[in-house]
Order: sequence, then structure tokens, then C-alpha cells
Amino acid sequence: MNVIFADQIQRKIDFKTKPQGALGTLEKLAFQIASIQGTLTPELIKPHIIVFAASHGIAASGVSAYPAEVTAQMVLNFIHGGAAINVFTRQNGITLQVVDAGVDYDFGKNEKLMDAKVGFGTKNFLLSPAMTAAELDKCLRRGREIVARVQATGCNVIGFGEMGIGNTSSASLIMSKLLDVPLEDCVGQGTGLKHEQLSAKLAILREAMQNHADIGSDPLSVLQTFGGFEIAMMCGAMLEAADRRMIVMVDGFIASVAYLCAFRMNAVISEYSIFCHESTEKGHECLLRHLKVEPVLHLGMRLGEGTGCAVAYPILQSAVAFFNDMASFESAGVSNKSL
Amino acid sequence: MNVIFADQIQRKIDFKTKPQGALGTLEKLAFQIASIQGTLTPELIKPHIIVFAASHGIAASGVSAYPAEVTAQMVLNFIHGGAAINVFTRQNGITLQVVDAGVDYDFGKNEKLMDAKVGFGTKNFLLSPAMTAAELDKCLRRGREIVARVQATGCNVIGFGEMGIGNTSSASLIMSKLLDVPLEDCVGQGTGLKHEQLSAKLAILREAMQNHADIGSDPLSVLQTFGGFEIAMMCGAMLEAADRRMIVMVDGFIASVAYLCAFRMNAVISEYSIFCHESTEKGHECLLRHLKVEPVLHLGMRLGEGTGCAVAYPILQSAVAFFNDMASFESAGVSNKSL
Repeated sequence: MNVIFADQIQRKIDFKTKPQGALGTLEKLAFQIASIQGTLTPELIKPHIIVFAASHGIAASGVSAYPAEVTAQMVLNFIHGGAAINVFTRQNGITLQVVDAGVDYDFGKNEKLMDAKVGFGTKNFLLSPAMTAAELDKCLRRGREIVARVQATGCNVIGFGEMGIGNTSSASLIMSKLLDVPLEDCVGQGTGLKHEQLSAKLAILREAMQNHADIGSDPLSVLQTFGGFEIAMMCGAMLEAADRRMIVMVDGFIASVAYLCAFRMNAVISEYSIFCHESTEKGHECLLRHLKVEPVLHLGMRLGEGTGCAVAYPILQSAVAFFNDMASFESAGVSNKSL
Repeated sequence: MNVIFADQIQRKIDFKTKPQGALGTLEKLAFQIASIQGTLTPELIKPHIIVFAASHGIAASGVSAYPAEVTAQMVLNFIHGGAAINVFTRQNGITLQVVDAGVDYDFGKNEKLMDAKVGFGTKNFLLSPAMTAAELDKCLRRGREIVARVQATGCNVIGFGEMGIGNTSSASLIMSKLLDVPLEDCVGQGTGLKHEQLSAKLAILREAMQNHADIGSDPLSVLQTFGGFEIAMMCGAMLEAADRRMIVMVDGFIASVAYLCAFRMNAVISEYSIFCHESTEKGHECLLRHLKVEPVLHLGMRLGEGTGCAVAYPILQSAVAFFNDMASFESAGVSNKSL
């Protein structure tokens, strides 16, 4: 973005009838959204949340508080409109698109579910890489295609969420490997493990890490080894959204790890991304600190599904609304700072 | 509230299709709102934000970055729909009620402004008490009457905001006196004082504190001495809202000080109150810690006007929406925790 335009955006913010900086995060969001769209009258159009769902081989090793079949059951719950993300997207006028990236279940044909299935779940990465290079490539390409299709509806802002029992395990390994931080800083309770279960999860993931000690830190290699289909597909989708200059709303821990992969492939994505919510899942705070980003909300949630994006969306709308609709000191006849 | 009903609310929350506690603050809000309304199907009806405006005698002593006439100018800005609170209430379907509690300006008759004027601004509390006992009583009674009128429209949730150049000074003194914490922990930059100006403000407020060293810590006495008309009227309004079992949304620093006064008069108000936003104004964090409350949002705002309430309102709606509309494990056929 050129410096003159950045200056114009900041001047528009600063001459609104409020003390400079008094709208805090809303001002930063307005600045970012106007910058992304390259206009002094930005708009949020046809917001979408895409939820990528997939099954994980590692779930068989007992790393989650819930059984593996919950992934498919929750996809059905999304289809029937009963999950948290259904409620929040309905509330805030957001179109929900659920994607079967690779769930271990045959959903048949269903107009409420986008079929992008790469397989019936990843392999257990304790024993072998989670997916083949061809599968990873498929995930990235399909993620990109899905975003292209969503943009074709007129949408210019997409939130990214996920569902996949076992995927905090996957995300923790990817984070640890890409950031070179100790695994114990990345592994948390997921959907609600108790203390001793958490120790068992950590031991299993340590073993997985050792079994793949030689994979290096290239994001493609790490994604192929430890990824979930939904994480890889989300990564491709985020890259495409940034390429298309769309606003990327990042949900919680898993989505932030998908972002981390995307960021390592193309750092320009950071200009387009808004981190919506800081999860209580253990690794998230550390990851956000590494990424040097400050999320919009801190509501102590840890649900995924894109819920952080859906709940934060009205805050983005507030940012755009004040930027477009508030009076300036001049237009309102209000005296500016005297001192 | 009886224990059995509290248990029913918690069970309803816990059997939604999500791990227990995974919606964090939204679960606490849903619990509180259901408790306030005494129902398992709560509703937010005709939300209002009431902005109380008043002028402050202390403004003449140069404690603010903006001139005193900005109070009246901003009220006109509210009337014309150009201020931040206009934008955010329009965005979120909230009715805005602006109240002239005692602005130093004759607005004439205006249907968009409720006339509850107690006087043309308080006296400068550096020299004498800000208001008489009769004026304080008027403020409290009018605040109560206004809430009664708002409730009569069918409203069951009210956010409280304010406008008044000089009112962080007033609020800081009240907080320091009522909580018995050092004045320097309560005094901040207000609308944007620079470092040396802040020192001057603190010196002036120290002098005011010394001049009224003997007033004790009764909230009525403290309000009369240091209060603004808008703070006192908001205090009465909050008390009435709690009496009527309405949801009280508390905005930033000034509104929290009005709440503190109300809380000292009737502690039951805490059950009805939701703190919407933690301001960056210096005293607010300390005050919230004393009150043992955790605000919904941390957006680094410091504008007042009820903006924290307006921006947080969709989060309250999310809480009510998940509580009413999400499927349960049973209804959705999702397996609950296996471990």
C-alpha cells in the first residue's frame, strides 16, 4: 500500500468526533480493512465461514476426550443446523459452508455439505506420515478452489473454522515443528482431557515427533507428516483468499496453525488476516505471541468450528461502520483538542 | 435464585453439543441472563442504551484535553446521529436515549433529547461540593424515573453510558474515596492528556480531595461532593433497573464508578450487571479488580458514550442464542465424552 493512501485512511480515522485512538482495536481493524480493500469506503460483503471437517488417524491412539465418530456426528449436526456455529452464523447473517475435507463417513449427496473428500481420514502419524504428497497437494488445491467459488458469490470476507476429533494433536505437532518450540508448550486439553490423560497425549505425541525427527521444517513436509486434511485444505484456502485480497478471519488454535503453515508459504497473508479469538487451548497464546498478533476477542472459548470468527464478526462490522458513518469534527461542529 | 433452578440452567448449558465450558464467557453470560429472567428460554427485548450528559464545574480548572463546550457539542452530535454511539446502536438494533442530566446549554425542546436537566453543570468541586443534597436527590429520582419509562416500552436490557468533559476527574475522586485507594491509581489521561498535563490534573484533584477530606465514605456524600449530574443520575437509573430485574450493561470507567456508587447503596445490583468493556483509562482496571468482575470485551477503547455496551451487545445475543437454539447431545445424536 502506498504511504499517501495509508495517511488518508489514518486522517479519516483521526478526524472522527472522538479523541485520537479512543476506539482502540476498532481503529486498527478499520485501518486494515480499508487498506485491504484499497478504499476509504470499505464494505463487508456476503460474509462466509467455511468449516473444514476431517478425521484423524491419531484419534485411534486415544488422544481425545471424545470418540472419533464425533467428527461425522458433528458434521451431521452442522447440516441439521444445531451446532454452535450454526447458531452464531444465523445470528450474524453469515453464510456457513461446511466442507467434508476427509471425514471417515459416507454422507452421500447433501446440498448443505460440500464434498471435497481427500480420503476417509488421515493415517495415524504415530506410524507413518499422515498423508501422501499427492493428498497434501489435493488438499491445498481444493482449498483454493473452494475460496474461488465462495468469492464468485460476491463475498469479500471469509472466516475459517474446523472440526476434527484429534486435530489439536495434529496442530500441536505442526506448531512445535515449525516454530521450534518444545512440544509441551503446544499440547493442551483439546476438548477436555483430564490431567493424567493429558500426560498420555503428550507421551504419544512425543513418540510421533521422534518417529519423524528427520522431516525438517518445510511447511509442506510438516503438513504432510502431521497434518489433518482439514488443516491442509484450510491452509490452501487461506492462501487463495489472501491472493484474492479478501479478508481472512482466523478462528482459534487449529485455524491459527493452518495460518502458520500458510504464512510460512507466503508471508503476505498477514496483511489480510484478522485473528478473531484467543482460545484457552494451551498452545494458542504462545502461537499468537510468536505471530505477533493480538486477537479481537478473549472470551475463554475453545470450541473451534469457526465460532470465534462468527462471534467476532459484529466487531468487524463496528469497525467498518464507525469508519464510514461517524461524523468528523468539522461536519459535526465539534471543537477538536484545545491543548 | 433457588439451587434447583441454577442446576437446571447449568445442565441445559452442559448438554449442548460442545465440550463442557467450551463457550467460556458466553456460558457465564447465558447462566446470568437466564438467572436474571428466571427462565430457561431467556430473551433480550428492545435493548436500550441511555447516555447521560452533563457539564462539570471542574472543567474550568483545565483538567481535560478538550474544552468544556464539547459536552454540549457532542450532545448535538448525538441528536444528529453522527457520534460513535449512534453508529453502534444503529448497527446492533439498540434504541439510543440521550438524556440531558445537566449540560451547560439550552437545547430547547427536542424529541431526540430527554430533558432531565438538574442544572447548568455542577459547581467546581475544587471550591465547594459539586451539587446540593437536593440536586443529588433529583438526579437519583430522575434516573429511576427514566428507567421506569424505558421499561414501559417492553425493554428488558439497558446499557448505561455518559458524556461530560471533566468527568474522569469526578469519577477518579469518587473511586479513590469509596475504595480508599490512592488518587494516583485512579487518575488517567481522560480524552488524551499528555504527560505534563496529567501531572497538573493530578495536582488539582489532590487539592480537591484535601479540601473535602472530612466527607467520609458514604456514597451519597461522596457523590454530592465530587459527582457529576450524569454520574449520579446513572447511579439512580442502575439501581432502578436492578430493582426491576432488568439486565444492566455497564460501559467503561465513568459508568463503572456510577455502578460502584449504586453497588454501595444496594449490592444486589451485581447480580444484574454485565461489565461490557475494559477501558484503557487508568483507573478502570483497578476498579474492575476491586469489584471482582471480568468485562466481556478488551478492545482498548476509551470513549464512553456507552460504546462498550453497544459493541458488546451482539456477544450477549450470542450467549442467549446458543442457550436457546443449540442442539443437545441427545437431540443431535452426538456421542458425549467417552473418558
